[in-house]
Amino acid sequence: MLTRIDHVGIACRSLAEKIAFYQDVFGLRLVSQEVNESQGVREAMLQVTAPAAEMSWVQLLEPLGPDTPVGRFLARRGEGIHHVGYGVPDITAALEAIGASGVRLLDARPRHGSMGASIAFLHPADVGGVLTELVQAARGRPGAGPG
Amino acid sequence: MLTRIDHVGIACRSLAEKIAFYQDVFGLRLVSQEVNESQGVREAMLQVTAPAAEMSWVQLLEPLGPDTPVGRFLARRGEGIHHVGYGVPDITAALEAIGASGVRLLDARPRHGSMGASIAFLHPADVGGVLTELVQAARGRPGAGPG
Repeated sequence: MLTRIDHVGIACRSLAEKIAFYQDVFGLRLVSQEVNESQGVREAMLQVTAPAAEMSWVQLLEPLGPDTPVGRFLARRGEGIHHVGYGVPDITAALEAIGASGVRLLDARPRHGSMGASIAFLHPADVGGVLTELVQAARGRPGAGPG
Repeated sequence: MLTRIDHVGIACRSLAEKIAFYQDVFGLRLVSQEVNESQGVREAMLQVTAPAAEMSWVQLLEPLGPDTPVGRFLARRGEGIHHVGYGVPDITAALEAIGASGVRLLDARPRHGSMGASIAFLHPADVGGVLTELVQAARGRPGAGPG
């Protein structure tokens, strides 16, 4: 059902500082930056894999304010890994199957994610403490595959 | 320099329970189980990607005792994401370049990791709170690539 590790989401205090770090020290390529008001987050996507392969990403997340999910995460735990996202070919089918297994869905229906993807989060308490995201990449997005 | 997201390492209290979860709910395939005495950990590798692509993995980590790195992590934070591992084609060259950039290396020289890989950890305080691992896959290991 899960077809790749799409991205690792990393909470940070300064997006500009962390973009520079991942570019300069690790040689990753910055592909996209956007603000997601509904999530209260400013984010960047840095490409890890070679262009020919299925894409995987480092997603950097800076909160738009303290009273946002990432702002509260930073206050509680400090900077670090926030969630893991897995690629799925059909997010509606995946949510149905996973929900039927008893895992609570934070998003019963997919919503808008980075670079036009459809995304949905699973309840971390039902996935061993891991905030887990499903990602169906937008058609034409790098890593979307032939579908 | 980093060529793929090799794996996400997840700390758990019961390896058997979490293997069953990732198999049954997410449909991942269990490929390898081993005990790493020097790391004080019992671990499992579950394959995420299709066999033809570069492999990525979910790595489940159960401590061999409370006084191990993963045991201390569980006591402090509970179950959840422990580290992220990135694939590199040449780990010695990668360590040299990253060390020269000022990031402290927890392993100055590569050591033994899952499925015969050469691995090394970077100091999380120098990577924005992220325990970061470099992985050069063993020749012949899935995901090792043509090199």
